Amino acid sequence: MESKEISRAVIGRLPRYYRYLGELNDEGVERISSSELSSLMKVTASQIRQDLNNFGGFGQQGYGYNVKYLYDEIGSILGLDKKHNLILIGAGNLGQALANYVNFEKRGFIIKGIFDKSSSVQGKVIRGITVQPMDDIESFMNENDIDIAVLTIPKNGAVDIAGKLVKYGIKGIWNFAHVDLNVPDHIEVENVHLSESLMRLSYNLSNNLK
Amino acid sequence: MESKEISRAVIGRLPRYYRYLGELNDEGVERISSSELSSLMKVTASQIRQDLNNFGGFGQQGYGYNVKYLYDEIGSILGLDKKHNLILIGAGNLGQALANYVNFEKRGFIIKGIFDKSSSVQGKVIRGITVQPMDDIESFMNENDIDIAVLTIPKNGAVDIAGKLVKYGIKGIWNFAHVDLNVPDHIEVENVHLSESLMRLSYNLSNNLK
Repeated sequence: MESKEISRAVIGRLPRYYRYLGELNDEGVERISSSELSSLMKVTASQIRQDLNNFGGFGQQGYGYNVKYLYDEIGSILGLDKKHNLILIGAGNLGQALANYVNFEKRGFIIKGIFDKSSSVQGKVIRGITVQPMDDIESFMNENDIDIAVLTIPKNGAVDIAGKLVKYGIKGIWNFAHVDLNVPDHIEVENVHLSESLMRLSYNLSNNLK
Repeated sequence: MESKEISRAVIGRLPRYYRYLGELNDEGVERISSSELSSLMKVTASQIRQDLNNFGGFGQQGYGYNVKYLYDEIGSILGLDKKHNLILIGAGNLGQALANYVNFEKRGFIIKGIFDKSSSVQGKVIRGITVQPMDDIESFMNENDIDIAVLTIPKNGAVDIAGKLVKYGIKGIWNFAHVDLNVPDHIEVENVHLSESLMRLSYNLSNNLK
């Protein structure tokens, strides 16, 4: 494993490579050179070669990269060759938007259960899944092999729920609640703090001197 | 302006400081030391001092930081002391979720218009705003002082719409469409690529050796 240590910066860029290669693959493109990929992705060709060299032997001088092979390899590095079972906690607009993203399922992220504390949405069916009350999370997780929870609830209560999910054996949390969850280190948390993203835009607009 | 050049890394951390300081302020906390803030935010105190020193004179040895003052200053650095008028393009679940976030408005991001290409949602009222057809964007932007567009539409069509928005004078785009927009450099684009976020979680889960 140690020989495969890849910098976080490179890892951070892999999903974007994966997206472009997937599109090229869908379009039937079989091979692409680093310079073609460069002009498509607006990244320097040397950056591309440097990034992809981390995985060894994908490119052949003069032949370019094999799109399908590179796509699959990056997918496997990202863990997308495995299926992940998800539960969604919070069936509001954001939760429903995520539940309806077809692409997530295509990439192996399968929503198995949806939970909400509000009795007005419990019983509602979203993409074939009936919204259940929060109290049912524990037994649901016992009976199903769930590794990721998607938290689309307001910040109040999110820390509490996260603590319970850890106790029930969750491995990863995709957190949209606007709060830091403070879970143990062995739980992977990926935060999507939308307000912070909007503030970055605001900053860049205020400081746009171009 | 040059003397205020702040690294992107620091800027990237400011929204999180802003969030914590806002919560402290709401709780009535007036002063906080870097070590208290450190244990709250789980960042080293020296990192905090280094970050906040960029703005000069916020902390006083032995007194700690003035919470309200620091909150307002960071807010102003982030451009949150100005109002921004937004239009939302795409009134699906994600668009509706964003339209209903009260916090955005509290921070000066005011949604003025909502547009969707589907006649089945046109005329629908979301938070007091009637969803209009896409063809009305141009005249709406001429009559209203809009600086940010929020794109919550599928990737097909997003590049096209972005091009039109640029022509109509948009300054910034908060892009949720899963595609790079390729707009001119003077337009600020903040991307929220949810699939890429989920892939990072997937990678971390696959490589979680803890």
